[in-house]
Amino acid sequence: MKRSIYDEDHEAFRSSVREFLDREVVPDLDEHASNHGLPRDFWLAAGKQGFLGLEVPEQYGGMEAGDYRFNAVLTEELAKVNMTLPSCVGIHADIVAPYLVHLTNDEQKERWLPRFCTGELLTAIGMTEPSGGSDLAALRTTAVRDGDGWILNGSKTFITNGGSADLVVVAARTSPEKKAKGISLFGVDTSAEGYSVGRVLDKVGQDESDTAELAFEDVRVSNDDLIGELDTGFISMMQFLPQERLGSAVTNLAHAAQILDETVAYAKERKAFGQPIGSFQNTQFLLADLVTRVEVTQAYVDQCVLAHTRGELTAVDAAKAKWWTSQVQNDVLDHCVQVFGGYGYMNEYRVARAWRDARVTKIWAGSNEIMKMLIGRDLGL
Amino acid sequence: MKRSIYDEDHEAFRSSVREFLDREVVPDLDEHASNHGLPRDFWLAAGKQGFLGLEVPEQYGGMEAGDYRFNAVLTEELAKVNMTLPSCVGIHADIVAPYLVHLTNDEQKERWLPRFCTGELLTAIGMTEPSGGSDLAALRTTAVRDGDGWILNGSKTFITNGGSADLVVVAARTSPEKKAKGISLFGVDTSAEGYSVGRVLDKVGQDESDTAELAFEDVRVSNDDLIGELDTGFISMMQFLPQERLGSAVTNLAHAAQILDETVAYAKERKAFGQPIGSFQNTQFLLADLVTRVEVTQAYVDQCVLAHTRGELTAVDAAKAKWWTSQVQNDVLDHCVQVFGGYGYMNEYRVARAWRDARVTKIWAGSNEIMKMLIGRDLGL
Amino acid sequence: MKRSIYDEDHEAFRSSVREFLDREVVPDLDEHASNHGLPRDFWLAAGKQGFLGLEVPEQYGGMEAGDYRFNAVLTEELAKVNMTLPSCVGIHADIVAPYLVHLTNDEQKERWLPRFCTGELLTAIGMTEPSGGSDLAALRTTAVRDGDGWILNGSKTFITNGGSADLVVVAARTSPEKKAKGISLFGVDTSAEGYSVGRVLDKVGQDESDTAELAFEDVRVSNDDLIGELDTGFISMMQFLPQERLGSAVTNLAHAAQILDETVAYAKERKAFGQPIGSFQNTQFLLADLVTRVEVTQAYVDQCVLAHTRGELTAVDAAKAKWWTSQVQNDVLDHCVQVFGGYGYMNEYRVARAWRDARVTKIWAGSNEIMKMLIGRDLGL
Amino acid sequence: MKRSIYDEDHEAFRSSVREFLDREVVPDLDEHASNHGLPRDFWLAAGKQGFLGLEVPEQYGGMEAGDYRFNAVLTEELAKVNMTLPSCVGIHADIVAPYLVHLTNDEQKERWLPRFCTGELLTAIGMTEPSGGSDLAALRTTAVRDGDGWILNGSKTFITNGGSADLVVVAARTSPEKKAKGISLFGVDTSAEGYSVGRVLDKVGQDESDTAELAFEDVRVSNDDLIGELDTGFISMMQFLPQERLGSAVTNLAHAAQILDETVAYAKERKAFGQPIGSFQNTQFLLADLVTRVEVTQAYVDQCVLAHTRGELTAVDAAKAKWWTSQVQNDVLDHCVQVFGGYGYMNEYRVARAWRDARVTKIWAGSNEIMKMLIGRDLGL
Repeated sequence: MKRSIYDEDHEAFRSSVREFLDREVVPDLDEHASNHGLPRDFWLAAGKQGFLGLEVPEQYGGMEAGDYRFNAVLTEELAKVNMTLPSCVGIHADIVAPYLVHLTNDEQKERWLPRFCTGELLTAIGMTEPSGGSDLAALRTTAVRDGDGWILNGSKTFITNGGSADLVVVAARTSPEKKAKGISLFGVDTSAEGYSVGRVLDKVGQDESDTAELAFEDVRVSNDDLIGELDTGFISMMQFLPQERLGSAVTNLAHAAQILDETVAYAKERKAFGQPIGSFQNTQFLLADLVTRVEVTQAYVDQCVLAHTRGELTAVDAAKAKWWTSQVQNDVLDHCVQVFGGYGYMNEYRVARAWRDARVTKIWAGSNEIMKMLIGRDLGL
Repeated sequence: MKRSIYDEDHEAFRSSVREFLDREVVPDLDEHASNHGLPRDFWLAAGKQGFLGLEVPEQYGGMEAGDYRFNAVLTEELAKVNMTLPSCVGIHADIVAPYLVHLTNDEQKERWLPRFCTGELLTAIGMTEPSGGSDLAALRTTAVRDGDGWILNGSKTFITNGGSADLVVVAARTSPEKKAKGISLFGVDTSAEGYSVGRVLDKVGQDESDTAELAFEDVRVSNDDLIGELDTGFISMMQFLPQERLGSAVTNLAHAAQILDETVAYAKERKAFGQPIGSFQNTQFLLADLVTRVEVTQAYVDQCVLAHTRGELTAVDAAKAKWWTSQVQNDVLDHCVQVFGGYGYMNEYRVARAWRDARVTKIWAGSNEIMKMLIGRDLGL
Repeated sequence: MKRSIYDEDHEAFRSSVREFLDREVVPDLDEHASNHGLPRDFWLAAGKQGFLGLEVPEQYGGMEAGDYRFNAVLTEELAKVNMTLPSCVGIHADIVAPYLVHLTNDEQKERWLPRFCTGELLTAIGMTEPSGGSDLAALRTTAVRDGDGWILNGSKTFITNGGSADLVVVAARTSPEKKAKGISLFGVDTSAEGYSVGRVLDKVGQDESDTAELAFEDVRVSNDDLIGELDTGFISMMQFLPQERLGSAVTNLAHAAQILDETVAYAKERKAFGQPIGSFQNTQFLLADLVTRVEVTQAYVDQCVLAHTRGELTAVDAAKAKWWTSQVQNDVLDHCVQVFGGYGYMNEYRVARAWRDARVTKIWAGSNEIMKMLIGRDLGL
Repeated sequence: MKRSIYDEDHEAFRSSVREFLDREVVPDLDEHASNHGLPRDFWLAAGKQGFLGLEVPEQYGGMEAGDYRFNAVLTEELAKVNMTLPSCVGIHADIVAPYLVHLTNDEQKERWLPRFCTGELLTAIGMTEPSGGSDLAALRTTAVRDGDGWILNGSKTFITNGGSADLVVVAARTSPEKKAKGISLFGVDTSAEGYSVGRVLDKVGQDESDTAELAFEDVRVSNDDLIGELDTGFISMMQFLPQERLGSAVTNLAHAAQILDETVAYAKERKAFGQPIGSFQNTQFLLADLVTRVEVTQAYVDQCVLAHTRGELTAVDAAKAKWWTSQVQNDVLDHCVQVFGGYGYMNEYRVARAWRDARVTKIWAGSNEIMKMLIGRDLGL
């Protein structure tokens, strides 16, 4: 089924993204994987192309696209390369951006956004904690009033861009007695005293990213670092979740579709018992099934992209897109590995890394179980 | 996800269909089930509403809608009642109609279409044979030249509307040596000598329909009964298959979605161990999963409906829609039965009949295996 | 994998069962299906063969086999014919029998067992109620003291043999304040005043059985009709559940295995596109998969049969056998229907009836959800 | 379900294996993973315990157990530690051993077996080739007559123990025109000129093993290195396949069962939303399901172990055990990862490594597709 949500401008943008990736990113990926992190050069180059500031007003150096489909195109092209790029870029440009654009005052915008767009100020978001997983209401990191500022204590984990971020948007408990309504957000400069990167985590996949634990020991932040109103952090996080989940969904599907394309091509070339493996009926039916799953799912994701472009995507529809695409992706990639046989288990084959990379998508950004809980609640169950 | 393919006219039409069904059809369904067939009164009433001639030019008494979405709306509303109605009406108004409208000459149009629209001339299509299943190229029914007419011999099976049709579009082999390119179509009057209805088949479900075997023993048809050019029947059948498959897909999903809605409602009411069964997490997650599957699939089917409205739906995309929706439907309904517990196994509960009715959708209109074969071929495998 | 749990005596018994079924039962099955019930002649003939009293002491006319494997062999052979026979016979000979043999006094044994073995006294068990489903603790039927007897009021549903039973073992609440510990069992003569059969239920499958609703309106039973100690009914029911569940498991698998055998045979004969459908790789792999599932499951069921023969089968292992086999059965039969194509949807084909018959096995005898609850509890979750 | 195939001797042996592993192996595993290979010390220590020579006659230093259940116990205990140990040890002690014990002459036995048992002579088997995958008949490695010896040329891949083996049993084509009947086996000393280890492969999992590519460039072997009769290699490989597949099956299930045990324990401890995650019904039902799958499968594997102990395991039953257990293992472990949430994606958590390690089991030792092909053939399809 031919897709119909993009027009010429989007496709022109897609070409520019692809060209950039082919030229400046793909050749160095193995090195990034070995180093467990994307280097600053990558961010500066992406910033130079304008890819980091799609949501940022022009006066602060952004593209102010005002059309989520550009974000979606960027995400898709990154995802066709691997899972790590859309994850790392997405955290910065899709997930942190709305906090810095929509919740900040003018001084903060001036301070953060220009360098956010150039890639000089790399960002991360610190929500998840070791004890709490997806349960934001159980947040333990505290911010205690101290004169005209705050003292932060606590730890975060599974933080994408955690090893290299310059600014972390940190969720902390400011009014302990008020549960979810006592959480605030702070922009924490990672050069602050007491801030430390615990460990770059040794993950199953996404080797190119420096996902890390963060620790805050009596980190002092000023009142000017408070993002949004005091005690409204939980609501803000809820408000921006649909975009995060939709970004995950777009990534999941673009990544799976790309690998599936490559697998179909491989099945036509690779021979066994004297004939292309794709000519065996079992393989043929399998690939027909997988292609159908991907195309059916694309129709839904495209509708979500359009709805979000109109500002109408609900949290629950985003939740459906997130869990379903991650399931589809994992199922598709597992079958793709099988089509490659023994080579599918070798890291030099992209399908192998894709399979490892994708596993976390059923867990992160709200586990699929959390998504079903939200959907069930929406059904009135 | 809110659907967006229908406008006010479609929704007004939907209301008129629904009102008609509630008033004139639903009250008598149990009787039709007992009688294993829809009575002529049903067809005449539907004809009076204009529902049978959506594709037929106005000059022959049709509505000439020129917009497949009206067909889709009609199909959806019929499917919300049960699987049999869209099946029986669809064979007549969606599947046979294109043959009689697009392949016929003026005399044939005059002869058949006005009464086709009023429901006086009920139609069926005779493709499938006992020996051949989905393999049209293996057709055994023959039409042998005899003076200025033809003599038909052979048998057909699984013929929807077979027990009551007045006119059957029959595929027969006219040039035996030319395989698929030697098949022609004839409009056979069921009052012809030598024509007989073998048996009304005792099916697993769809009790309201008179699916039957047909036998042709030296049935004489005139040259005027040939539909389309000689020996072009196979191509014609291929040409109209996308609409048939899309109709199946629309039916599958509307039916499943309706039963799922009712199941969610039931899960909120029915109690076990002192609480609504929908409040148990396993049920909650299950229903969240099923609702997601249905909505994701709806997005794809809606895209197919739009594509077909524009005349752009490919056979292979229709094949994807057909197999996927029938699989989704069957999976969803099996879980719905389970939610109803013992009552789900009782025919007085609609979910039970729905489950029986739906099973055939993975088999008819080209089995899901045939669909995957077509998709695989389209992938170049 | 060759099975190894049966010796020569079991196989000789199997032959006698099979011969009996072929000679006296199979020819009349269509008639029983039309009549929605097995006639008394069936029961008397089975009694004559000694098949109804396997668990009953010889002094009361039973075979006193003392080896559950004979029950298992009987169940398997009945299940190879259809699902209804092992269900109806099993309720009487496997499920009611332990109550009448192990919980009764000598007078009751004398009164009931001889005619139980001959088939003159056909039995049923009344646990499930319209409001309660699988939740025995929610039982609403009451037995209130009245002089030296009791007055029963309430209703039961989904009662196998309900339309024709002469004696029903009824669970009723004797001490309402004591919840599960206030339930007792009574042998209710169905000729008693106030007893009535509500309706023979119109089920999705198992057409040959007269599953029914029962109603008790001021039915008077004497103290001599109390089975076991007062208020110990719940414990007794728990105690006999493993045998019921194991019987279900044996039935599920023997039934599925038989239909699968027939499907493999069909796949070798039936042709499409000029070759046997079993020669298509997709069908070949599917059948290889299904055969594996059945054989793997057989190994587990056989171990359960051995364990139960030794008196060591736990309730939780029986629960595993019950839910797993019913899932395997339903999955296998759904695929078998598909192999038969359109014929798989015709009731004249056995696979079609088997598919309808089997659906209830995921629901009855404790739904699969209840089974998982028990297993989860056993895991300490 | 309690297992019943092992007696006291087997359990005593199990204790000794476990003690050895805890003491001498487990502490160093991280180091082996970093080094991508098990060191010679491991092999010598295992040899000292007698674990490498279970199949070898006592006169050559083996234990000559004559009871496959000892192999199974060893495999299970290794698999409880991780997938790599039973893979590496199994290739040597379970898969190569039969070739060296049953096909060799006395001189060869003298030359190879004593050091095979001590771990001084580490072995591998070279069947799979880059171009051929599971298709042994397509073998390209050649052995050409040269005086009283042979000249080997070709390459092998995916060779377990490939990086460190001292002796490789190599399948080579000796009579090119005779297809499968022209293959012979040679014991190739890896110090031979022209032999080289191409690369230690970078795999998705099983980091502790030095799976490698092997290259043979004009490697000269003498007639004394021919294992078994000339041109009978294919038959020999077929003959020993059941033991290889059964070993895979035993490994798959023991590994999955161990990780599942640990996951159940984790679900009882780890809290979310203020309660143990195992107390959520979705988790409870999931774990109940997984435990059932493992126990059902164990019953089948145990029957296979008994059959093989009696020398009666057929190739096709071994194929069933192989594919089914690998599917069960992968499904179970994927769910286990999900229960661990974000931690399930961290390599420091064992479940994460187990998930990566297990993926290859659906591919190696004959892919699951090959297994289904064999089973289908056995069904006469």
